[in-house]
Amino acid sequence: MLVLVTYDVSTMDSEGQRRLRNVSKICQNYGQRVQNSVFECIVDATQFAVLKMKLADEIDQNQDSLRFYQLGNNYKNKVEHIGVKGSLDLEGPLIL
Amino acid sequence: MLVLVTYDVSTMDSEGQRRLRNVSKICQNYGQRVQNSVFECIVDATQFAVLKMKLADEIDQNQDSLRFYQLGNNYKNKVEHIGVKGSLDLEGPLIL
Repeated sequence: MLVLVTYDVSTMDSEGQRRLRNVSKICQNYGQRVQNSVFECIVDATQFAVLKMKLADEIDQNQDSLRFYQLGNNYKNKVEHIGVKGSLDLEGPLIL
Repeated sequence: MLVLVTYDVSTMDSEGQRRLRNVSKICQNYGQRVQNSVFECIVDATQFAVLKMKLADEIDQNQDSLRFYQLGNNYKNKVEHIGVKGSLDLEGPLIL
């Protein structure tokens, strides 16, 4: 199934910037970045559970947030894109 | 139906910051902000078409992107949240 993962990570300090990089890295192992803080992941129920657990462990739940949207298996006609493709990797060279 | 709107707007210049504010304002008229660049909108087909048209007109399609995810009417068990609720309004006082 397609699961959409969106996140807000507070990057007010270096610890937040570290969390943001780690959240991004975890998501990259499960799916494709479609916008700066939006990943589309094709996962089964077990993978989804593990992904959620890893991300929940990584964020600071008092400052950051995660949202998961289950789009099911017939998702192709449920998703539309307008504008530029790809996404600037904000967690890339700018911070490292 | 629930439509999720996610956006990336390039804010490298003041024109981009203006676009970001306007995209946010348009979305606020149709739904609820759940993360910085993520809105959940309860719309019918006509409202959805108008929302898409307004947003597509507002962005710079060479720099920005919009994505729309149709979650249907039975969306309550398809959405999960972890972490802090609410979202810092990045288009608010910091820029204005």
